[in-house]
Formats: sequence, C-alpha cells, structure tokens
Amino acid sequence: MKIYIIGPGLIGGSFALDLQDKFKEAVIYGIDSVEKHLDQALELGVIHQKAVLEEVKNADFVIVAVPVDVALELLPKVLDLISDQALVIETGSTKNPICEALANHPKRRNFMATHPIAGTEFSGPSAAIQGLFDGKTNIICEVEKTTFKLQEKAMQFFKDLGMRIRYMEPKSHDKHIAYVSHLSHISSFMLGKTVIEKEKHERDIFDMAGSGFESTVRLAKSSPAMWTPIFQQNKKQVVKSLDEYILNLQQFKNLLENDDYDAIFNEMESVNRIKEILNGMKK
Amino acid sequence: MKIYIIGPGLIGGSFALDLQDKFKEAVIYGIDSVEKHLDQALELGVIHQKAVLEEVKNADFVIVAVPVDVALELLPKVLDLISDQALVIETGSTKNPICEALANHPKRRNFMATHPIAGTEFSGPSAAIQGLFDGKTNIICEVEKTTFKLQEKAMQFFKDLGMRIRYMEPKSHDKHIAYVSHLSHISSFMLGKTVIEKEKHERDIFDMAGSGFESTVRLAKSSPAMWTPIFQQNKKQVVKSLDEYILNLQQFKNLLENDDYDAIFNEMESVNRIKEILNGMKK
Repeated sequence: MKIYIIGPGLIGGSFALDLQDKFKEAVIYGIDSVEKHLDQALELGVIHQKAVLEEVKNADFVIVAVPVDVALELLPKVLDLISDQALVIETGSTKNPICEALANHPKRRNFMATHPIAGTEFSGPSAAIQGLFDGKTNIICEVEKTTFKLQEKAMQFFKDLGMRIRYMEPKSHDKHIAYVSHLSHISSFMLGKTVIEKEKHERDIFDMAGSGFESTVRLAKSSPAMWTPIFQQNKKQVVKSLDEYILNLQQFKNLLENDDYDAIFNEMESVNRIKEILNGMKK
Repeated sequence: MKIYIIGPGLIGGSFALDLQDKFKEAVIYGIDSVEKHLDQALELGVIHQKAVLEEVKNADFVIVAVPVDVALELLPKVLDLISDQALVIETGSTKNPICEALANHPKRRNFMATHPIAGTEFSGPSAAIQGLFDGKTNIICEVEKTTFKLQEKAMQFFKDLGMRIRYMEPKSHDKHIAYVSHLSHISSFMLGKTVIEKEKHERDIFDMAGSGFESTVRLAKSSPAMWTPIFQQNKKQVVKSLDEYILNLQQFKNLLENDDYDAIFNEMESVNRIKEILNGMKK
C-alpha cells in the first residue's frame, strides 16, 4: 500500500506514525512545500520517503493536512492526479469552503472531508505523536458524497485508530467549531497580547504567573500560518462568536463596576457546570 | 510545635500536608467555618485534629487560607488571640486590602502577607496536594513589617518547601496579579459562558470540543466563593485589565471584519513569543 501524507506536521505526521503502526507493509511518502520540513519528517522516521505532488497518481491513500487556504488550492490538483481507487482525506479546521470547492469535481467521490478534534499547540513534523487520535472525535462532513467502498475503508482506518465518528453538515460544523475551537484561540491570543503589552512597562510580571495563566494562554503558542486562513474561511461565524464573547466580558465588567457581587457570584456559579460538560467530553 | 490551619482546603490543606512531612513532631490543627470540610480534612489525614478559633492562642504557627473577604474579618481576631511568639501567614490572591487592614494592629509584627503562586481549579480538603509548592513562587509583601525572628522562621519554611521568594509592595502585587491571574479567570469564565449559552440552542457542540478548549476554560471550574471577593477587592485593577483585554478583542474583530489577514497573522506571530515567556516561568 502506498500512502502519501501532504503536510507531515502535527496532524499529518501523527497519522503517518499511526499508519506505520497499523499497516506494517505500507510505504509512507511525504510531500511538503518546505523541503526542510520534509527532511525533518524523514529524519524523525515520520515518513519513509520524500515525494513530489505528481507522484500521488500512485497513491492508494492520501492524507492532506495543510493550512486550510493551501488545501483549497491543492485538493483539486490532488484529485485530478489520483487513480479511481484512491481515497483522499482532508483534515482542516473549516469544512464548508473545501466541500463547496470540490462539490463538482469529477473525483468528488474519492474525497472525504474530516476534522479530527485532536492536536496540540505545536506544529511541524517534530510535533507528530503516535496515538494522538486514540479516543478522539473525528467529524466527517457530507459522508454520502464519498463512494461507499472508500467510506468503508476510511471508517475502518479511523476505527483502528480508536476514533469516535460524528457526522455533520459542513455549515453546521463551521458554526459550532467557531465557538469551541476558533474563539478559544482568539481569547488566548488576546489574553497573551494584553499581558505582554503590560510587561513592556512593568518588570517581573511573569514571575507572578502560575499554571492558571499558562493553561489559559497555551493556545497563543499556535501557528499563525495555520490559524490565519481558518479565521478567514470562517470569518462570519468567528465574528459572531467574538461579538457574544465581548458582550459577556462587558457585562461582567459592568457588574463589577456596579459592585453587584451577588450577580458576579451567580455568573461564575452557573458557568461552573462546565465541569460536568468537560467530564462528559472524556467519556 | 502546634500548627493551626484556618481553611484546610486547596492551599491550606497542601501546606498542612507539607508541614506534616517536614515537621514530624508537629500537631496540625484545622479550623473551618464549615464543619463538613473539617471532617473531610480529618478523614483525609490533611489535619491531625479539629479545633476552634479561640485555640490559636496555643499556636506556634498559623496559616490562614480562606477567601479574601473572610481573611479581612478573621485576621484581626487571630492576631488578637495569638501569643507574642506566634507566626501568622495569610495566603490570599489580593494583598493590599489585608496589609492596609492590619497596618496598625498591635501584633502586625507577627503577621506575614504572602501569595503562593500555586493551585489548581479545584477547592476543598480533597484538592490538597503534597508538594504543591515545590518550585513555585511565593510573593511576600511588606516583609520588613514582620519581626526579624519570624521572617527567618517563615523563610526557612518556604525554602524547605522548595519555593522561590519574591518581595513586592502590596499595591504593585495587586496591579500585576490582575493581569496574570485575575484576568485569566474572567476570560475563562466568560468563554465558558459564551459556549454554554450557544449549547442551549444547539446540540452536540461539546462533542466537538478538544483539548484546546478544555485548557482555555479550565479556570471556569474555579470556586465563586473564592473568586468573587478577589474581584471585589481588586476591582480597580481588574476593570482596567478587562478594558485592555476587551479593546484587544475588538481590534482583532475589526481586523477580521476588514479582511486584514496580514495584520491578523502579525498579531498572532508577535504574541507567539509567549512561548519563551512561559518557558522562562519554568526556570
């Protein structure tokens, strides 16, 4: 079996490591626009061989894990090149633009739009982790547009990796993910910015930061090259979620300015049920 | 040695566990307004015996780890009761109000105002962790107002626990901590609120949440009883930090609405240096 990973970084590289483990006979090829990344992926054993885009014509299975703007440009070309039997999976954090872009492609039935809810704040081949997807959710959009045989192949693969499958419409995916993922990244980046701006004028502030701050700004380490096109492609929903978040912050500030500490207590107490929700995530 | 822990919860209980380890001969007494917490602390072995406030007259060492509004009320009484040789340490997240409240107390020299930068989002005796303070920063305010002999005793204790000491003015502490701790909690609570509000109308949203969301809303599990008086006591600085945070979020939203993706990329890239800052925290 010949497997091509386009973008063997955090997500693509982690798939590569799991594929090596599950399919001992498979040859894993890596494709990346940055030669240095490819060399690193090879050196780390994430991929077996380096390849170029045209070679995907030999692929049984292609995983595309690149920034979502690059995916929009690259996937039509990949589908043009592949054989009729090949399965192409894309893994980006927005799903509507890519589904729309490929809607009328003659090889649409070879394609599966997915979003594995897994990752860390790191990127590149060195961020790849074997077992990253175990117990995680994979959201699959427009599953009915993938040919049945390739659906089956993909499902077996995700099942082997220990993933839970959820089916969603692309628009619905993009709307919800704005709240539970994209907004978190912005809140974290802007929290980091607010504190860094302060630090310019004030020394020693970071000696005072504890694990709570660290947890809240963790996502501010994320890759701008990955996240800028996500915000661009999901602009409408992200702006909406930001509006609601800003409004909630302003209301909290108003309660504080009006010394309404009973209301502040109640606000926090009602959000405390996030505990149960987060525990539910782990089941 | 007789040690009294007023509030044997996350912070007080963790001190109790370390004290048991370092001072094998010490008897650890617990005092709490909630009888149930005290029973739990005893059952978990966090304290050796239950006690009532009046008994602190027998104490060599008192640790007060209660919500900051309770501390304001309780500490003058504790200082009234203790012997001339006793050391009283308070551990809350605001320092100016307590330092002002005790400035003219006849036993001010027996008191040390501290803020150990350690903790988790959990609370109560079951949240106590042995070794919680190892490698953590302890901020001490107005150290010169504590009598030299008791300073020495306290420093040896914190050193035994593996803590780094930083000295600060109470006002300066409260100003900085608004950014690196209090603001993080509000950003997290309001993120949780924004997502929970959405979930009322939309199913399945939490199946889509990953570890990034979990990290960013972790602090929204925190205790409202602990945090409401912190926000109250540090109102001015917290409102200021919230203003700056909201402004940064609005500016980010404006960039998005104006499709200025170069600026969005640059914003995120410049905040990425939080990586080095967070790494610096660990040294």
